[in-house]
Parts: sequence; C-alpha cells; structure tokens
Amino acid sequence: MEKIKVLDKGYVELVDFFGGDKAVAMAARISYMSKSNSIEEDKRLIELLAKLGHESPFEHIVFTFHIKAPIFVARQWMRHRIASINERSGRFTEFEDEFYVPPDERSENSSKVMEESMKNAFETYNLLISRGVKKEVARMVLPLSLYTEWYWTINARSLMNFLNQRADSHAQYEIQRYAVAVARCFQISCPVTYSAFVKNLYKGNLLEI
Amino acid sequence: MEKIKVLDKGYVELVDFFGGDKAVAMAARISYMSKSNSIEEDKRLIELLAKLGHESPFEHIVFTFHIKAPIFVARQWMRHRIASINERSGRFTEFEDEFYVPPDERSENSSKVMEESMKNAFETYNLLISRGVKKEVARMVLPLSLYTEWYWTINARSLMNFLNQRADSHAQYEIQRYAVAVARCFQISCPVTYSAFVKNLYKGNLLEI
Amino acid sequence: MEKIKVLDKGYVELVDFFGGDKAVAMAARISYMSKSNSIEEDKRLIELLAKLGHESPFEHIVFTFHIKAPIFVARQWMRHRIASINERSGRFTEFEDEFYVPPDERSENSSKVMEESMKNAFETYNLLISRGVKKEVARMVLPLSLYTEWYWTINARSLMNFLNQRADSHAQYEIQRYAVAVARCFQISCPVTYSAFVKNLYKGNLLEI
Amino acid sequence: MEKIKVLDKGYVELVDFFGGDKAVAMAARISYMSKSNSIEEDKRLIELLAKLGHESPFEHIVFTFHIKAPIFVARQWMRHRIASINERSGRFTEFEDEFYVPPDERSENSSKVMEESMKNAFETYNLLISRGVKKEVARMVLPLSLYTEWYWTINARSLMNFLNQRADSHAQYEIQRYAVAVARCFQISCPVTYSAFVKNLYKGNLLEI
Repeated sequence: MEKIKVLDKGYVELVDFFGGDKAVAMAARISYMSKSNSIEEDKRLIELLAKLGHESPFEHIVFTFHIKAPIFVARQWMRHRIASINERSGRFTEFEDEFYVPPDERSENSSKVMEESMKNAFETYNLLISRGVKKEVARMVLPLSLYTEWYWTINARSLMNFLNQRADSHAQYEIQRYAVAVARCFQISCPVTYSAFVKNLYKGNLLEI
Repeated sequence: MEKIKVLDKGYVELVDFFGGDKAVAMAARISYMSKSNSIEEDKRLIELLAKLGHESPFEHIVFTFHIKAPIFVARQWMRHRIASINERSGRFTEFEDEFYVPPDERSENSSKVMEESMKNAFETYNLLISRGVKKEVARMVLPLSLYTEWYWTINARSLMNFLNQRADSHAQYEIQRYAVAVARCFQISCPVTYSAFVKNLYKGNLLEI
Repeated sequence: MEKIKVLDKGYVELVDFFGGDKAVAMAARISYMSKSNSIEEDKRLIELLAKLGHESPFEHIVFTFHIKAPIFVARQWMRHRIASINERSGRFTEFEDEFYVPPDERSENSSKVMEESMKNAFETYNLLISRGVKKEVARMVLPLSLYTEWYWTINARSLMNFLNQRADSHAQYEIQRYAVAVARCFQISCPVTYSAFVKNLYKGNLLEI
Repeated sequence: MEKIKVLDKGYVELVDFFGGDKAVAMAARISYMSKSNSIEEDKRLIELLAKLGHESPFEHIVFTFHIKAPIFVARQWMRHRIASINERSGRFTEFEDEFYVPPDERSENSSKVMEESMKNAFETYNLLISRGVKKEVARMVLPLSLYTEWYWTINARSLMNFLNQRADSHAQYEIQRYAVAVARCFQISCPVTYSAFVKNLYKGNLLEI
C-alpha cells in the first residue's frame, strides 16, 4: 500500500489495515441496535463519537505498518504499549552500515563529525565480528543512530494516542517526521475517522485535515 | 463470513479478519531478516513458533466477531481484557423477550420452571417501561439469561488464551459452546496457525485439528 | 482502611494502596535525574505533570479495593480493562437474597413491584437449588440487581480514566455513587495527586477538591 | 529494601512492593467467599493456584523496582508491555561516561577494543555538547552499551512472564543476570508465591527454590 520515506534512510509503510471507517460506525451502532442508512449518516456518527470522546469504537480499525527508523526513535516508539511489535534482532542478524546522520541544521554543522564517529564504531563492530565475537556482544559498540526495522500492528484508538504524543512539536524532531507519515497513512485509509480525530481529539500541533 | 448458531438463540459470526497465516510468518521473519520462499516454509515456521512458545507474531492476526449470548456468558467473556468490545446498551435499547432456557438435561427437568420465571421477570420489565420507568432502571429485574450482543475485536494470541480457558471442560458448558464456535472460525480463516496452536499451545480438551 | 457504604447494601473499601504522592514525584524525577528537596517541590511537580498531561508517573500509585455492587454496575465496571479483578463466583457459591432495590424516585414509585419480582426470582433460584440444579444453572434466573463482590487492583492513571467516565452525570446514577466513593478513597490516600487530577485532568462534573 | 549489583555498573533495587503472599490468598478466596484460617492454608491455596494455572490472583501483588542497565538490555526489557516505566531521558540529561564493557570471556578477549570504541564515542559526544549541539542529537553517537536507569512497576503475574522469558539460558546473558536479581527480590518479598511459581509455572532453567 502506501510507503513514505522518512529521514535519510527510513520509511513508514502501511502493510495492511482492516475495518476502516465502516467498522467504527458498525461497532458504535450496536449500542443503540440501529442500522446505517447512508455514508453521510456514518460520517455524522463518527464525528459525534469523536466530539463526545466515545473512543472505544475506534478500536475496531487495525493497522499493520512496516517501519524503518534509528534505534533512538525505536526506543521512544516502543514505549507505546497497546500495540504489537516484531523487530529485527541484533542477536541473530548482522547489521549493515546504515546510520541516521542528522543534517547540519540539527547538528550545529557537526554532521561530518557525527558520521565519522558512527563509521568508526561500525569498523569496530566489523572487527569484532571477524574475531568471532557474537553478534549480540559486538553490537554493543554500535550507536543509537543505527537503523532497525519492525512490524507494528495497532488499533486506531491507540494510534490516536501515539499521534497526540509524537505528532507534536514537543516530541523529538525525528519521531515527529515518522508520526506525520503514520498520520498520512491513517488519513488515506480511513479519511472520515482521521478527520474526526484531528478536529476533535488531536492535542498536537502538526497535523491538519 | 462464517455464522454459527450457538445455544437456543445465540450465535458467533466472524465479521472480518486480517493478516492471516501470512502475517504471522511475515512478522516472525523480520527477526532474522529472512524472506519466505514457499507456503510450505511458512507452515514449518509457524509450527516452530508455536512449539517454541514464540507467541508475539500471532498478534498480527486480528479478528472481529459479532456475538449474541446470554448475559452470564457475556460476563465470563468480558473478563478477557486484551480485546475490544462494543455491546448493546440496556440503558438505550429496550430488550425483547429473548432468554436462554437451558435444556432439561442441564436443569434437572426444571426448564419449564426456569422459563416461567424469566417470563414473569419480562412482564414486570414491560410493566415498568409502561409506567415510564427508565430502561436503565427497569432492566434491573431482568435475569442473567437475557440475550445481549457485542462486537469483539481480538488478536490471535489473545484468542488462543481465550480458547485455553473457555474451550475446556472446566469452563461452564454454555461458554464452551461459544468457544468451540469461535475456534471453528479461527480454523477456517487461519488453518495453519490454528493447527499449530492446537498441537502445541492448547491446554484445553475440546478442540481437535 | 476506608470503607464507604454505597446504595442500599453495597460498599467501597480501600484495602491497601502503595506508592502514594511520593512515588509519582520519584518516578517523574528520574527523567531529569533530579532529587526532591521538599514536599512543597513535590507538590508543584505533581501539579505540573497533571497540567502538561504527563500521566505515566501516576501509574506507580496502585490501589486495591473491595467492592460490593449489583451485577449491572459490575458489568459497567469491568469494561475498564487496565485493572485486576477477582470476583465472587456464581458457579461455586450460593447467592443470598441480596438485591439492589432502587428508591421510588428512581422507579416512578414502582420499587415495591421491583422488589416483588426480585423475590420471586430468588424463590425460583432456591427451588432449583433444592431440586439439585447446579448453582451455575440456577443463577440464570437471578436478576441484574443481585449483589456481587470483587477485589479490584488498579493504578492511579487508570483510576483517573475510570473517574472521568463514571464520576460524571452521563454515567448511570448507581455507578456514579460508587465512583464518588472511589474518588474519596483516592483523595484520602493521595491528596496531592487527587487534587492535581481534579484541577487539570478530570472531565466529569461530580468531583470537587 | 533489597539492592543487588548486576554486571559491571548496574543494579536491581526493590523500591517497594505491596500485597504480598497474603493478597494472593485474599483475592483467590473471594471466588468461594471463604476465609483464611492459617498461614498454612494460604500456602496450600497458593500452591494450588499455581498448579492449576489460575494466575489472576497473582496480579494483586505489585512491585516497584529501580533498575540501572545498559541500553541494549533496556530495549529487551521494555518489550514487556504489562508494566509501568519512567526512564531517564537522553533529551533532558547529559550522560556520564558509564558503559557496560563485557568481560573478556564474552568478547573473545576484545574487551579493550570495545572499551576504546566506547570512549571514542563518548569523546565525540562531549565535543558535540561543547559545540552547542542539543543533547537529544549528540546522544545519537553513543553506543548501545550506555547505562540508563528506570523505575519499573509490575504485578507478580506479569513478572512471572518476564522471568519465564528472561531468566532462561535462551535469553541474552546480560539480561539473564538482571532477571535472576529480580527473581531474588521476588523470593525475599513473597516467598510462598515465588516458590509456587518456580515449582509449577516457571518455564526457564536458571531459577531454583
């Protein structure tokens, strides 16, 4: 489906989603045992749910994303507990020379220095591997800018919480970029729910309808 | 999709599912950054995950069910926390005369007595409603055998736990019937994962491959 | 500790709590590796956390309550998933003649009618038990007003969410009464956190500082 | 309370716990509305719960730990979702020169090389800080062996799952050492529950009674 590049070597890819706007309306209607008559009615209902803060029907939309991001971003990401994650293992796979090097605006013109340091660390990693050191031990010298990958399955309610925290200028710049890309996938797949969220429940300051 | 009758007036309906066997293999392979070459390989991998108790990849399969069941069954059901539920409201909808009447084998030939009692309760409910008593108050006289309905979204790992507890002869007979129907939906939609579960992780005694 | 009567035969009892206001400040300070110098400073910090919506430190306060409430209240209660519950079993214990009878203001002067109906149901229950019907079957005729009991362990963050939903005039009157009693226990045990919550995070309209 | 050194510079400290063995017995007894007559009876009950896999009463014991561990250990640790964490921030605090250097047995006699690499990274970090680079950016060059700290509040049921995964020879050596220290705190504070766990529910191969 959608694949969006983020930072210098990362991405957010929407692998699959299910339920969609329809599932929200369906789940909400069971409270009243009512039926949907039109897409327009569903839209008004979803708006109302967001307005009143009735968030439980949003749990029936579920997304699976494939994310590639630096480890310091992954660390912030995985603090969101209501989600399912399977990540690349540093015990079982050997890493490539893939690091996030922040642009000069972010590093007070020290990007070169940073890149140098990451390369040196990677050379040590390679040396250790060549000496027969286990991957799980050798990787201890690798920097937090190293890219990793994971699958992330999350329902729309928990995703909204993620966006409230991370698609906001108080979050670190790098995870902001990911959060905006995630939001874009949400918008494309569930336009009504996304719009109801941004208008009524969103607490950050980076997303627009 | 699948709709299976359970007890005298209830059912289990698989509304939708996503991920399926494929998603399990995909999520598991990211640990090793390996690719699938064949369905046969995926099958062996899924078997192995179940055997070793590596259950996290099963979270990337998600189901939505529509359930109709008596309230005493709903009460046992909703103790399973890792799932999303929207249920018919007794505050906002008026109930019909729909009760579970256990067969004579379950009630020492007292089914008539039980049905009579439920009917009397329902007549009182109707009387109260006609007197202008709020639905949320009137329903307090209704019995635990009253049928209710809900949507239930749950991932396969949490579903396995549900089946371990409820598709077992230690569970109450009525929820056993529901659990077996849920398992059937699981089997039809994700045959490889279902079979790996029953062979390796299932702790109950009602399910077979 | 605190035990508060609720409705005609129910109660909320704070069995134990841990962490308290101190634990919130301690957990929050680790972000900055700072130390507390005074209770006044802790107080200002807790206020700030609530104001900024930094709720995770509130998870380090944990309460255990003993609750006695009618089943229709228990049903609303147990939809709050981030908590631990052990409840009296209707399969293994025989129920007493304990029902919630709403006052006449709630029942349009039909309290007598309701009580009568509940008594009739209980007589049938007794009859069934005397005929050798299993408790788990006989209880199906019992009404939703039947009292049950449970232990409830929950952290302060999840408790705040419970209060936002249930200590509010949109909730059903009966659970409102319980929520207010729960809030009272919260206030007594963690006065600073409670006050910061009510001022900054509380969305309902029944609680005051 | 208990503070146990782990690896070269880390530790596990039990800050507080609540409930204890008593809470498990109390919570379990409510199912049957029975009372405890003696510590001996409680002990037999707790053993039985573990034997039958009735794990929910274990949720009423809750621990708070203070952990100091390398980031690669923290990454494995924080995949356990049913727990509450507040961690030192690399955005708001400046790191010290504290890295885990694995002993020569773990590094094929390359410990010196590893330490050198870590020191170089730290010098770059210092240089970046001195140039006015933000802490959140500068830390990207720091290695996964860097020590971090967090508070961890977790109930005994979830802790048992942590021990099943991490107090086992399949886990990485370093987290094994932490898991064994955590288990020791569990044993000291809740001896009956700990012993029932190890005898009946423990799937790993490092713990003994």
